[in-house]
Amino acid sequence: MSHQNDLYPTRLQEPKAPFQRLDPIVHARNERRWDGPLDEVALSRYERDGFLWFEGFFSWDRIAPFFDELRQMENDSELMRSDKVISDPKSGAIRSVFAMHEISERFDRLTRDPRILGMVRQLLGSEVYIHQSRINDKFGFEGSGFQWHSDFETWHAEDGMPRMRAISASIMLTDNNEFNGPLMLIPGSHHYFVPCVGETPEKNWDNSLQRQEVGVPSQDALADLAKRGGIQAPKGPAGSLLLFECNVLHASNENMSPWPRSNLFFVYNSVDNRLQEPYAAPFPRPEHLGNRENTWALGMHDDFPELAGQGVAPLH
Amino acid sequence: MSHQNDLYPTRLQEPKAPFQRLDPIVHARNERRWDGPLDEVALSRYERDGFLWFEGFFSWDRIAPFFDELRQMENDSELMRSDKVISDPKSGAIRSVFAMHEISERFDRLTRDPRILGMVRQLLGSEVYIHQSRINDKFGFEGSGFQWHSDFETWHAEDGMPRMRAISASIMLTDNNEFNGPLMLIPGSHHYFVPCVGETPEKNWDNSLQRQEVGVPSQDALADLAKRGGIQAPKGPAGSLLLFECNVLHASNENMSPWPRSNLFFVYNSVDNRLQEPYAAPFPRPEHLGNRENTWALGMHDDFPELAGQGVAPLH
Repeated sequence: MSHQNDLYPTRLQEPKAPFQRLDPIVHARNERRWDGPLDEVALSRYERDGFLWFEGFFSWDRIAPFFDELRQMENDSELMRSDKVISDPKSGAIRSVFAMHEISERFDRLTRDPRILGMVRQLLGSEVYIHQSRINDKFGFEGSGFQWHSDFETWHAEDGMPRMRAISASIMLTDNNEFNGPLMLIPGSHHYFVPCVGETPEKNWDNSLQRQEVGVPSQDALADLAKRGGIQAPKGPAGSLLLFECNVLHASNENMSPWPRSNLFFVYNSVDNRLQEPYAAPFPRPEHLGNRENTWALGMHDDFPELAGQGVAPLH
Repeated sequence: MSHQNDLYPTRLQEPKAPFQRLDPIVHARNERRWDGPLDEVALSRYERDGFLWFEGFFSWDRIAPFFDELRQMENDSELMRSDKVISDPKSGAIRSVFAMHEISERFDRLTRDPRILGMVRQLLGSEVYIHQSRINDKFGFEGSGFQWHSDFETWHAEDGMPRMRAISASIMLTDNNEFNGPLMLIPGSHHYFVPCVGETPEKNWDNSLQRQEVGVPSQDALADLAKRGGIQAPKGPAGSLLLFECNVLHASNENMSPWPRSNLFFVYNSVDNRLQEPYAAPFPRPEHLGNRENTWALGMHDDFPELAGQGVAPLH
């Protein structure tokens, strides 16, 4: 709470109008060192929209073991009791699991997938590490939605992330369709920072992971941005990949269908953007929500058996 | 509560499996008397799916006056205080208005639109009257959703509607899109009656119009039917029309967008299917929810100025 010149003030007492972001979106265009699999068209789209969608990025064969491992976790009573797991109060089934890459060797290896890592390093223009990883599960007819928000707003306020230089990679472990609560995004909203009203309560994360009360943009700001950019909800089969910028506004609706929805999230942060003290919260959130300990740069491995035969082709 | 042989028992103490409906879906196929604008393809689709969607059925010019009148109603403080209006507890804005056709001459005339009435009489194979009429409004970012249910289940249990011989005509007064909480339907679900568990509380309507607690099918039954028939959410511009059978399962999700959603509903019941005592409730619901007084057959008027120049063309 001791930052002198906060570039992105939020959790304010008085409303403050949205303003243009002060950080680049593509951080290293035309720097050979960070060349990667994305072509100019893809880079421009990411710059414009704040996200990229890759339908069927992984085959089902590649994804099935992750899905199976997740189901097995439900039988691990020690894990299920830990604070890394948020389970459904009614059914007891997993709703979210944090720090997936620390719990599981298989998920850890996936964070270093050369194709994903190649794109993320290209967009962030630096080496990267995992800021947070999680699974969000929505069971049939039960999974509730999530209000519109910018992840960066929370990571800045509550985790002390200084600048907008992080990306979420969301890998669909089930099909995402119109009715099972797919992620919705407001294209172009990442160009603006929307300061939010309301002081951060102590241990806000105990409640905010179920229903966010602070860090919620005003309806006027949301309406403005949604009327300008529209709303999109990428849909596709299990194995599809969504890369989205840390400041793009997103939300999801309830799962009204019998079809479960499991999405895996890896948040990559630049090693030049490591966490400091929170900008608008009394204490930092726990390690499994905002990683401070293991922030060395991720390396791609040769030892990557899952990739055998898949190659690392540039995406067009 | 004194019906001896209830064909559609519901609000039960013990679960009972869904069973095939005992009433026809198209009630008068090949009866010249009830010939109408729907062709064989449309009749078969209605038989199969339980609904028909007409994108842009009315032009915006035709719809705008209804929308304007609705906005004016918000300034009628006497109306706003009546039990026909359910207003949003937060904003005070209209959420639902019942008995639209009694409040407003313009809406009353619309119930006798020759094209709509022609299709409804053709499908129900009889003269018809208005069982209920209402507007459902969902404001931007505020309108909440509605759980899966069959209208007939409620009308049978709480209003005493004997058989499945009614149709809802829903006219969109605003665009309905993927994000403002469009109506979702389970095609084919109208072939089955799903008995529901739980006794009807006294004056259930006071709560059920905000959140339905009884008359909700089991998740197993819903999953079965949705996996068989899928889910559809018709979307289109203001002026579009949805005709749906009284027993088709439907729901809607929250309005996550800045775009309001106003849908008008006219429920047409066959004059051969007038209300009796409730089948599973202590008292009948009020007149504005289940009309018992004005049940004479609706007639189409020559005096229909809004139709000038539009003709009454058969739909193909």
